[in-house]
Amino acid sequence: MLDFEYCAPTHVVFGKHAVERIGELVTDQNCKKVLIHYGGGSAKRSGLLDRVTTALEQSQISYILLGGVVPNPRLSLVREGIELCKREGVDFILAVGGGSVIDSSKAIAYGIANDGDVWDFYSKKRVPQACAPVGAVLTIAAAGSEMSNSSVITNEDGWLKRGLNCELCRCKFAIMDPTLTYTLPPYQTASGAADIMMHTMERYFTQVDTLNLTDAIAENLLKSVMRDVTAALNDPEDYDARAGLMWASSLSHNGLTGCGTDGGDWSCHQLEHELGGKYDIAHGAGLCAVWSSWARTVMPTNPSRFAKFAVHVMDVQPGADDTETANLGIDAMERFFESIGMPTRINQMGIDLTEEDMRELAYKCSFMDTRKIGRFLPLDKQAIYTIYQKAKA
Amino acid sequence: MLDFEYCAPTHVVFGKHAVERIGELVTDQNCKKVLIHYGGGSAKRSGLLDRVTTALEQSQISYILLGGVVPNPRLSLVREGIELCKREGVDFILAVGGGSVIDSSKAIAYGIANDGDVWDFYSKKRVPQACAPVGAVLTIAAAGSEMSNSSVITNEDGWLKRGLNCELCRCKFAIMDPTLTYTLPPYQTASGAADIMMHTMERYFTQVDTLNLTDAIAENLLKSVMRDVTAALNDPEDYDARAGLMWASSLSHNGLTGCGTDGGDWSCHQLEHELGGKYDIAHGAGLCAVWSSWARTVMPTNPSRFAKFAVHVMDVQPGADDTETANLGIDAMERFFESIGMPTRINQMGIDLTEEDMRELAYKCSFMDTRKIGRFLPLDKQAIYTIYQKAKA
Repeated sequence: MLDFEYCAPTHVVFGKHAVERIGELVTDQNCKKVLIHYGGGSAKRSGLLDRVTTALEQSQISYILLGGVVPNPRLSLVREGIELCKREGVDFILAVGGGSVIDSSKAIAYGIANDGDVWDFYSKKRVPQACAPVGAVLTIAAAGSEMSNSSVITNEDGWLKRGLNCELCRCKFAIMDPTLTYTLPPYQTASGAADIMMHTMERYFTQVDTLNLTDAIAENLLKSVMRDVTAALNDPEDYDARAGLMWASSLSHNGLTGCGTDGGDWSCHQLEHELGGKYDIAHGAGLCAVWSSWARTVMPTNPSRFAKFAVHVMDVQPGADDTETANLGIDAMERFFESIGMPTRINQMGIDLTEEDMRELAYKCSFMDTRKIGRFLPLDKQAIYTIYQKAKA
Repeated sequence: MLDFEYCAPTHVVFGKHAVERIGELVTDQNCKKVLIHYGGGSAKRSGLLDRVTTALEQSQISYILLGGVVPNPRLSLVREGIELCKREGVDFILAVGGGSVIDSSKAIAYGIANDGDVWDFYSKKRVPQACAPVGAVLTIAAAGSEMSNSSVITNEDGWLKRGLNCELCRCKFAIMDPTLTYTLPPYQTASGAADIMMHTMERYFTQVDTLNLTDAIAENLLKSVMRDVTAALNDPEDYDARAGLMWASSLSHNGLTGCGTDGGDWSCHQLEHELGGKYDIAHGAGLCAVWSSWARTVMPTNPSRFAKFAVHVMDVQPGADDTETANLGIDAMERFFESIGMPTRINQMGIDLTEEDMRELAYKCSFMDTRKIGRFLPLDKQAIYTIYQKAKA
């Protein structure tokens, strides 16, 4: 196992009464003016936005609103938010939504705390020196952005989807009421669960010796999510299942499931970022569509790790050797993804990739052929292309 | 499951190179003067204290030293530390040791940040309003104080051992190098592991419906500790086992294993606190000595919870009914404690309790017959007495 650091300082307030705490939690931030950042109409329709604004008014906190965040959140709205916040003297961003809204909020928070173009941080030209404080009222269990150090933004100029990991952006607080996710459509519920699982799986598949306790937590988190998403799809108002998914979303991406590993592989996230940037698909679905093609490509470099996954997570009966067990595990995960309505190939998302598309995706994913992705088996442009081809249909 | 809050903001730096980071971590605290607080000679003999003072000198940080913390740390030394810190203008406490040293440090930190007698907070006369910042260099995997909100102090006047839980005292950072625990004697290693397990077991045994994910983490943490302590007793320099124990000590008491439960039972801790205050035994050993007597007393109110524990933690084959399975689980845990050299009765620690002793312990444990202890089955003075009697021999 490797040395590690762990710091997940977000104050989580979890449960049916969590939203009632919002006035108190924002008041504790001692801010002058709040930007309430949100997505489409669901936060309005559900009455959540009204509950939030009423709570701030009762606590005599000034605020302004900026809606319109879309999945794969856009740089243009981030820039609009930065301008707005600077003009209005906003010093605290309250994200009301899921991962896209929180990520957009983090980007705005970087933008108002640093000079220059915020995209520089996502394109890795510069490193942010500060970040305005962000809080979250979570409405989708998926991205884990409410406790993570990461955010992902899509630049419409070139449709580049790029992530930024930095400790400065960890949310000050996260209000997590599982009942807010009752109305999430089945496809979004399943896609969210897949995203949660992938945050742990990206960390789990590593070539370094791992900490037994971290493995045990990771494996059981994955089993817990598989059980809970199945239950939530059967009964969208199963509180325990929704709560399990919501808490797993945070634990799966706050660092806990990677303690002692090498930081994770993240190839599947990179492969999906190109798809998501170009085709605007649900992130979790895109991850499912590439995962097994990635897994079958890299597994031969370390069958025993995939065999452990097969036995401990997928409850597979071991085969004749690690390779057979590993393949049984990958098959079982594919069947699980299918069981919750997730794609296991890209064409199942209505995308018919051409030769040219795949070459373009591989070119962009390899940063114009300048980098390899992944740690389990580093993949160059050609290897990336091959995985897109395997995952195509 | 119940609503919960979770906030464990301690910055953990974990691994073989963790101690090298001390200068940087203390520098980040922007303090004027540091109190280095430590225990007996082992921190000196091992050279750790020299490494710490050298690192602070290289970072040009002023410090003073106060050693002499003993297991079941004493109020008199805390008071001495408070006086010393006030006189010297200390504004940061660096604990170099195990749970006793960290707890003593937290008590000093309360003392210098609040007026009046610090014991008022432990005797529940007043609530602390502030706490000076504390950091830790951990040398024993046991108490979990490096990430927890708790501290326990023993007042020699009446030999009262009392705990205080308050968010203000969470360590700013914790430096955790598993190799520092290589030289820990077997009895201390086993007692530490028992303490780690009990922090999760106190939370696990609850009458409320629990969050499946929390149960899964708790159960697997316990299994992980049982495997790791056995390995560490076989080979004291088994790095992975020592690392597993050290990380489990933090996760078991930072709140993670209780998310969604009712805060835990804590009867065994209360029962042990009276023993530890009076007889100065190792905390974990004292917990083992009372646990099975407590468990057999309270199990009949909820056999299914103990049956789940038996199957999921102790790998017991289910019996004819939950009660039989539960009893098999309690028996199995007793055998495990024995296997690592821990007592399962009080007389195995060389204490021959008289009638009068037990009545005195029960009287003090029930706060002079004014409170019940525990949530799983609240226990009054008479019930407490009965458990001491069962656990006696």
